[in-house]
Amino acid sequence: VFDAVETGRVERGVVPIENTLHGSVHANYDLLRDHAVAIVGETLVRIRHHLLGVAGSRLDLLEEVHSHPQALGQCRDYLRRHLPSVPAIPAYDTAGSAKMVAELANPKVAAIASGRAAQIYGLSSLAEGIESNQSNYTRFLALVPREGASAPGSSADTGFKTSVLYVPKENIPGVLFKSLAVFALREIDLFKIESRPLVGSPGQYIFYLDLDGSLADGAVVKALDHLGEIAGFVKVLGSYPRGDRVD
Amino acid sequence: VFDAVETGRVERGVVPIENTLHGSVHANYDLLRDHAVAIVGETLVRIRHHLLGVAGSRLDLLEEVHSHPQALGQCRDYLRRHLPSVPAIPAYDTAGSAKMVAELANPKVAAIASGRAAQIYGLSSLAEGIESNQSNYTRFLALVPREGASAPGSSADTGFKTSVLYVPKENIPGVLFKSLAVFALREIDLFKIESRPLVGSPGQYIFYLDLDGSLADGAVVKALDHLGEIAGFVKVLGSYPRGDRVD
Repeated sequence: VFDAVETGRVERGVVPIENTLHGSVHANYDLLRDHAVAIVGETLVRIRHHLLGVAGSRLDLLEEVHSHPQALGQCRDYLRRHLPSVPAIPAYDTAGSAKMVAELANPKVAAIASGRAAQIYGLSSLAEGIESNQSNYTRFLALVPREGASAPGSSADTGFKTSVLYVPKENIPGVLFKSLAVFALREIDLFKIESRPLVGSPGQYIFYLDLDGSLADGAVVKALDHLGEIAGFVKVLGSYPRGDRVD
Repeated sequence: VFDAVETGRVERGVVPIENTLHGSVHANYDLLRDHAVAIVGETLVRIRHHLLGVAGSRLDLLEEVHSHPQALGQCRDYLRRHLPSVPAIPAYDTAGSAKMVAELANPKVAAIASGRAAQIYGLSSLAEGIESNQSNYTRFLALVPREGASAPGSSADTGFKTSVLYVPKENIPGVLFKSLAVFALREIDLFKIESRPLVGSPGQYIFYLDLDGSLADGAVVKALDHLGEIAGFVKVLGSYPRGDRVD
C-alpha cells in the first residue's frame, strides 16, 4: 500500500494504525516514517464477530469452531454459554477460517469472522455480534503521496488532528518532559502519546503523537518548530479531520 | 499464569509484556491491572529464528517454508536471497510449524522457529539467526502474589525500575502534561510512556509508565503521591532491578 501510494500507482491508500484492544500497528508507523506519504483522513471501524456456517448448519449441530485466536478470545463468553463442549480451534486469520468452512461444506464446522466474510464466502450467520467487548475498534488512516498533499484545513475548521513522529535528542536532561511542554505551554491537547524503543539504537526512543489542531494553526506550527529544537528527528505525518466511529 | 500466581499455586510467573518490533502486550497490561500480583524482575530475551528441517533435509531440496507470518516477514531478506522460488506459507505459530514439519517427516518442507523448538521436535537447523533485524527482543516480567511481595531495594541500590498504570482525571486541563511533571520536577527519568484508549470509556486514556527508581526512594514515593492528586486511578505494579538483555 505504501509503495503504491508513494509512486502514484493509486490515488489513495488505507492502512490500519491501531486497535482499541491490541494497540498500535508498529510496522505501519515504521512505514509512515520511511515513505513519502501524508495522512489526509482517519476512520474508526467497529470490529464485529459473527458465527458463520454453511447452509443447513445450526448451533446444536456444531462440533468445531475455527477462528483467529484473538477472535476466539473476544467471543469466549458467548462460546462458554452457547457452545460449552465445542472445541475452539485457532486459525491463521478470521477470513481464512470462513473460507475453510465454505470449502469443507460441513454443517458441523463453523467459523468466527466478519459479516463481510459471510457475504464473500456465501456463509450463513448463526449468531451476530458475539464479541464480549463492544469497544473493539480499528483506526484506519487514508494516505496520499506527500508531494500532492493539499494544505490542511484553516484554523477556522474545528476538529483537526495532526500526527507527528519524533526522536528526542539524547543529551538534553528531561527531554521527554520538555518535548511535551512545547505543546502544553501553548495549550495544545494531545490525543495520543506512545514511546517505543528505537530499533537498532539501544536507549533511544521514537514517539508517536496525535495533537489537537492543524498545521493551519499558528500555535501548532510554533510548537512543532520548538519541538525541532529538542528532537533530532521530527516528521509531521499529516493534518486531517478527526474521524468518526463507524458502527 | 496470573491466576496461578495470584492464588499461590505457583511461587512465580513469567509473562511477556513487550517486543521491540511489535510493541506492548496490552492483554497482559490489562491482567496486571486486574490481578493482585507484583512485578519483581524483568529480562529481555533476544528472538532468534532458525530454518528447521528433518534429518536429510537440505536447502536445495526445499519446496515449502512454514511459519508465523511475523517470523516469515522478519526473515524475508534471507528467504529472498537463499530460497527465492520457495513459497513461504503462514502458520498459526512458529513452534506449531516446527511440530508440523517433524510430523510430516518430509525433507522438502521446513519451518522457521526457535532453536528450542528444534530441540523439542528433534529437527535439524539448516540455517541459524536468519532474521534481518538483530534488534528483536521480547521483554518478560517475573510476577509474585501481591501480598507476599518483599520490599524493593533501598535507594542505595542502583538500577531499579518502577512500573505504574494510571488514568488521568478528566476535568483537569493539561492533565497529561501535569502527570509527567510530577516526575520531571523531581528529576525522575522515564523509560517508557504509552497512552491507550480506556476500553469502555470513550475519550479516556490509561497510561503505562516505567520510571527510573524504586519505592525505597523518597522522591519516587512523593511523585506517586502527587500523581494520585491528578489521576483517578493509580496502580504501582512493582519496583524491580532493571533487566539485562539475554542474547
